[in-house]
Amino acid sequence: MVGGGIGAFIGGVHRMAANLDGEIELVCGAFSSDPAKSKASGEALYLDPPRVYGSYEEMILKEKELPEGERMDFISIVTPNHVHFGPAKLALENGFHVMCDKPLCFNLEEAYELKKVVEKSGLLFGLTHTYTGYPMVKQARAMIENGDLGKIRKVVVEYPQGWLSEQKPDDDKQASWRTDPSRSGIAGAMGDIGTHAENLAEYVSGLHITEMSADLTAFVPGRKLDDDGNVLLRFNNGAKGVLHASQISAGEENSLKIYVYGEKGGLEWHQMEPNTLLVKWLDKPMQRLRTGVAPLYPASTAHTRVPAGHPEGYLEAFANIYRDFAYCIQARLEGKEVDAVYMDFPGVEEGVRGMEFIYKVVESSNSNVKWIKL
Amino acid sequence: MVGGGIGAFIGGVHRMAANLDGEIELVCGAFSSDPAKSKASGEALYLDPPRVYGSYEEMILKEKELPEGERMDFISIVTPNHVHFGPAKLALENGFHVMCDKPLCFNLEEAYELKKVVEKSGLLFGLTHTYTGYPMVKQARAMIENGDLGKIRKVVVEYPQGWLSEQKPDDDKQASWRTDPSRSGIAGAMGDIGTHAENLAEYVSGLHITEMSADLTAFVPGRKLDDDGNVLLRFNNGAKGVLHASQISAGEENSLKIYVYGEKGGLEWHQMEPNTLLVKWLDKPMQRLRTGVAPLYPASTAHTRVPAGHPEGYLEAFANIYRDFAYCIQARLEGKEVDAVYMDFPGVEEGVRGMEFIYKVVESSNSNVKWIKL
Amino acid sequence: MVGGGIGAFIGGVHRMAANLDGEIELVCGAFSSDPAKSKASGEALYLDPPRVYGSYEEMILKEKELPEGERMDFISIVTPNHVHFGPAKLALENGFHVMCDKPLCFNLEEAYELKKVVEKSGLLFGLTHTYTGYPMVKQARAMIENGDLGKIRKVVVEYPQGWLSEQKPDDDKQASWRTDPSRSGIAGAMGDIGTHAENLAEYVSGLHITEMSADLTAFVPGRKLDDDGNVLLRFNNGAKGVLHASQISAGEENSLKIYVYGEKGGLEWHQMEPNTLLVKWLDKPMQRLRTGVAPLYPASTAHTRVPAGHPEGYLEAFANIYRDFAYCIQARLEGKEVDAVYMDFPGVEEGVRGMEFIYKVVESSNSNVKWIKL
Amino acid sequence: MVGGGIGAFIGGVHRMAANLDGEIELVCGAFSSDPAKSKASGEALYLDPPRVYGSYEEMILKEKELPEGERMDFISIVTPNHVHFGPAKLALENGFHVMCDKPLCFNLEEAYELKKVVEKSGLLFGLTHTYTGYPMVKQARAMIENGDLGKIRKVVVEYPQGWLSEQKPDDDKQASWRTDPSRSGIAGAMGDIGTHAENLAEYVSGLHITEMSADLTAFVPGRKLDDDGNVLLRFNNGAKGVLHASQISAGEENSLKIYVYGEKGGLEWHQMEPNTLLVKWLDKPMQRLRTGVAPLYPASTAHTRVPAGHPEGYLEAFANIYRDFAYCIQARLEGKEVDAVYMDFPGVEEGVRGMEFIYKVVESSNSNVKWIKL
Repeated sequence: MVGGGIGAFIGGVHRMAANLDGEIELVCGAFSSDPAKSKASGEALYLDPPRVYGSYEEMILKEKELPEGERMDFISIVTPNHVHFGPAKLALENGFHVMCDKPLCFNLEEAYELKKVVEKSGLLFGLTHTYTGYPMVKQARAMIENGDLGKIRKVVVEYPQGWLSEQKPDDDKQASWRTDPSRSGIAGAMGDIGTHAENLAEYVSGLHITEMSADLTAFVPGRKLDDDGNVLLRFNNGAKGVLHASQISAGEENSLKIYVYGEKGGLEWHQMEPNTLLVKWLDKPMQRLRTGVAPLYPASTAHTRVPAGHPEGYLEAFANIYRDFAYCIQARLEGKEVDAVYMDFPGVEEGVRGMEFIYKVVESSNSNVKWIKL
Repeated sequence: MVGGGIGAFIGGVHRMAANLDGEIELVCGAFSSDPAKSKASGEALYLDPPRVYGSYEEMILKEKELPEGERMDFISIVTPNHVHFGPAKLALENGFHVMCDKPLCFNLEEAYELKKVVEKSGLLFGLTHTYTGYPMVKQARAMIENGDLGKIRKVVVEYPQGWLSEQKPDDDKQASWRTDPSRSGIAGAMGDIGTHAENLAEYVSGLHITEMSADLTAFVPGRKLDDDGNVLLRFNNGAKGVLHASQISAGEENSLKIYVYGEKGGLEWHQMEPNTLLVKWLDKPMQRLRTGVAPLYPASTAHTRVPAGHPEGYLEAFANIYRDFAYCIQARLEGKEVDAVYMDFPGVEEGVRGMEFIYKVVESSNSNVKWIKL
Repeated sequence: MVGGGIGAFIGGVHRMAANLDGEIELVCGAFSSDPAKSKASGEALYLDPPRVYGSYEEMILKEKELPEGERMDFISIVTPNHVHFGPAKLALENGFHVMCDKPLCFNLEEAYELKKVVEKSGLLFGLTHTYTGYPMVKQARAMIENGDLGKIRKVVVEYPQGWLSEQKPDDDKQASWRTDPSRSGIAGAMGDIGTHAENLAEYVSGLHITEMSADLTAFVPGRKLDDDGNVLLRFNNGAKGVLHASQISAGEENSLKIYVYGEKGGLEWHQMEPNTLLVKWLDKPMQRLRTGVAPLYPASTAHTRVPAGHPEGYLEAFANIYRDFAYCIQARLEGKEVDAVYMDFPGVEEGVRGMEFIYKVVESSNSNVKWIKL
Repeated sequence: MVGGGIGAFIGGVHRMAANLDGEIELVCGAFSSDPAKSKASGEALYLDPPRVYGSYEEMILKEKELPEGERMDFISIVTPNHVHFGPAKLALENGFHVMCDKPLCFNLEEAYELKKVVEKSGLLFGLTHTYTGYPMVKQARAMIENGDLGKIRKVVVEYPQGWLSEQKPDDDKQASWRTDPSRSGIAGAMGDIGTHAENLAEYVSGLHITEMSADLTAFVPGRKLDDDGNVLLRFNNGAKGVLHASQISAGEENSLKIYVYGEKGGLEWHQMEPNTLLVKWLDKPMQRLRTGVAPLYPASTAHTRVPAGHPEGYLEAFANIYRDFAYCIQARLEGKEVDAVYMDFPGVEEGVRGMEFIYKVVESSNSNVKWIKL
């Protein structure tokens, strides 16, 4: 693991997600750019002290020297955006698979470069667009893929949060890097959560956004990056849509929602009540599909752990991405095929797509031209 | 009443709304352009046969000749959009107050003309933007007006319906005039329900939309008017927003919702569960305000009829507009002042605003310029 | 109308419910035992002064002397429980149909006597168990009647309110008579709302309660009648159930809910969100039926006024009882048959049943014997 | 781990729960009474083969011989009810802490005996009444403990499931032992889920049930144990209540809910939407408390892992019990005190209480005496 020292939010989440199914064991880490902090974090995590490293470079190179079967199988990158590319590239070039937090990297050049590195390496690359890990999101995608809703006409995806409604104190780690262009990149809310919304919309609908018209704003005085954005969408099949994401929607927690409408029916899913998928039909009663209540598509049931009515949450969705990734690595190690249902985690393609989204949405917001192509 | 023969949807709604509180009595009508139909409708409504007229012109002129106290006090116009202007103008010019269904009229010229007629007449003019009649919508408006949420930053208003997802048979009265430019005007969904969304957003927020960027579509093959539209909004105080309305959101009933976010908190209201208003705060637990559960602002309690937990619906909201209108007429008749809390129904100003919205949203959709002023 | 002077809760509700559909006109009233108050109420209701009476006796006898077609068609009784029997009996004996608020009367003897009077008169008698007027309650009943859920095994009905959690001041009219044995009868919450729960359970399930085991409590110090009760139920087909009702469930509004489970599926309905009926199946996805969204049983659609997504509330449910009652009176006047779908309002049978429930639930609560027959 | 071979439901749940936080490592197991199955399970779980045992006796005795620091710290018992007592007693007598699935054991005698063994051993004993592990359940308990709701008057706890609505095939492992008196004990649904409801009611309210009146039924033909039960409750402070639990509530998933009412307000919590706690007040607006949204009591925040709006589910609640248990063991090992907020897992007391509940609820159901003391 690179990054994720004690106290970091997303590092702990990655660890819990990786632990859950007992398929992955944390064996080493470079948890902080401060070696003492990294050491302390490793100790708290019961790691073997020699395998707690002072930098990702050290970790990758030292682990590579360990005998096969003992050395780590892959690295997890859970640092701020500007420290994704370096460890990812180095790991891939040294033969390690990579799981990386989103967005893919700091800028578009890095993204294109990293894509080439992944392709050249032939290794596995995962990106934690967590929300596609939910069983009912997979059900939604499968329904659309199978034509249950007919041709898709409209997609609405919304992602309001309120936690950046006020200027945070400088020592708020989560807020400070996310609102700092030198660590976050050219976008704020759009990079942090707008990319999740974009990824969810394309994953569920199976469509691609082709044009956007955006209006981004930095509402909090002094903030350098957008904390709110509204975007009109056009898709490759002629569907239309709306994406809005915000971190100044005061009082909202993490209210990602998606609505998709086809010629025959519509879907509604809320991340904060993730085990329910409302399916609305033109000509029959609305259905309230629930995680684990048959009949569901295999993509959904394969990513469910407990019986219906025992709610599965964010960590389980996150763990689905890790478990699918682990199954694919295991299969490689054992020279087997993985069931296609588990080859379902976001990768470098989705990462590049997200970076392009960030660049184009910012371009559109700064432009007087109505439509910008994506 | 002009229009609203037996079988018409909105005419029956107006009658129930006007009946509910026992303050208004239907005394005469020109229910159809077909005199026989008008007659039959009048009979079914237990009207005195001589007061069932064959045309609105006849009704207005004959009623005017009746003695004061016996003649009608106001007319209700419940015809398709292209037959709003005529009866409204004639009634006002003959001394009758007017309650009119929305949108105000067929085109922008009529709207400006009608506004002048209203102002010249000194009479009361009401417009049934029903959704502002709900107690919790009034509570939302009052909270924002009182600064409870701080300065408003974002408004999201959505109005998906699904009932026009398919081509309707020609004899479907509701669908046929709404999708016919010669009776509906230049907009379809935007005129029918987009104006409700626009009106609700401005009523609740107390703000004015100043710029829009729109993307309207006619999804159903052969349809001449938009059945779906997505719009970016900018408001006079710097707030941003989104409005989307649709009649091809398959499986949706009448799912008008509004979200407003200020510096201190946010509001969420759903028309289909209208007795709940979610209030979200930056620094304290979310509140679930409910119709009739104190403490609420007087504007809300004054428009509530039954104790908390006895749900009030669409007809009660509609009746609130009629009752406020009736109270204002009564006060005029009695030479009294009306409590300000009841001077709260949409009028010709809101009607002109709605017509401007229709024209500008269509203009924006046809334009490559990103922002069109409203 | 007997009772329901200005300021009374349920009288106003009856008037709005009767007004809504334009089928019923209030023509006379004895609104208060205080003639001056009755006068003032009649004036506020725009009644013809001579037809505002000082007592129900006067009203019934004077109206009888009016010519047919001019005299009232039926009376509505909206007084406290101890003044139901008198006006009902007198009206029936003088040829007037009767609509009466629930519970039927003050004690069981009156109930049995009134039943005889109704039967002897051959006139129509309605009882406002409002909650059976909701379209989705009628849908629930129809589904069970048609065997959609299979044999019924379990019924849970709950009716928590919180408004009597504290001792109310003596001048609170609603609270004072409901907690006074000399006006309310032998039960408090069980008479006021427990009977609604009992009626709803039997109406929806089509079953009869045959045995009960009850535990009633008066929690508020000094209160003479129960303000809370929990009851085990056994039904005539072997089904089991629970009924609990309370007026000290602090913070609850009017949260009547019913759950019915059969061999094939289950139903869930909440009065505070009355336009939704959840239908749960053993072997297929849950359905969320909604008022006005086809396909529904005719009993449901016949009691719906506005298109889907325009919420219908408590007053519409109440109005359904009045409208069905009015249709039946009209049919009698015109010598026609009424469509069976409209012969669906609670009557004297349900009233007697409710009184028996009250007596037996109190007896059970006072008894050490586990099961008391109903 | 004792029991929980591949394919068993609850064993996998225990493992995921224990894994989640990285504080517990599975080191050995006796996963099945069939040694080959146990072996296969251990392999699938990446265990060191010598530490996969053929019986719990073997495991406990062999592990005891391992050096301190290497041997297991505690055992988890995840077998059917009739195999709880044996391994628990043996483990305690050999110095191992015990985490045991509920209910505590097979019969009341075993329960009392086990309590003595625990007390004598001085070791830690945990019982996985999972539902008390949810952050909002802990919030509810803390609010009541702090008097926020005033004196408690009423508790309603309901636990409907539908999965045993039909006779299951003999090879359905989950159903077969739960409906078999020789493995489950004297109760079916009441033992399996009624005890959860009882535990939740007492945990949240801080009260004790003192009297019960029960009506249990075996609805499915041929079933030997209850699959449905309704119970009136009386509590030690004079509060009243209802408990109903069912496994024939067709279409229900796992719908545990609790409602508690005090003199000042009420609480409502649903297990299937566990991150919301509705708090209803006599004199102010309803609050919708949410996991992770301040302010909450420390007992709640200490058991929350991710920021607000990232739903935590059943496995996280389960993991809270394991993590608290692990913290207490670690503290013992290190000779430290544990923060009181983590000394919050069900133990042998709650286990004995649950067994008494089972026995008394069955006794009550078979009795004509109305109230049976608990």
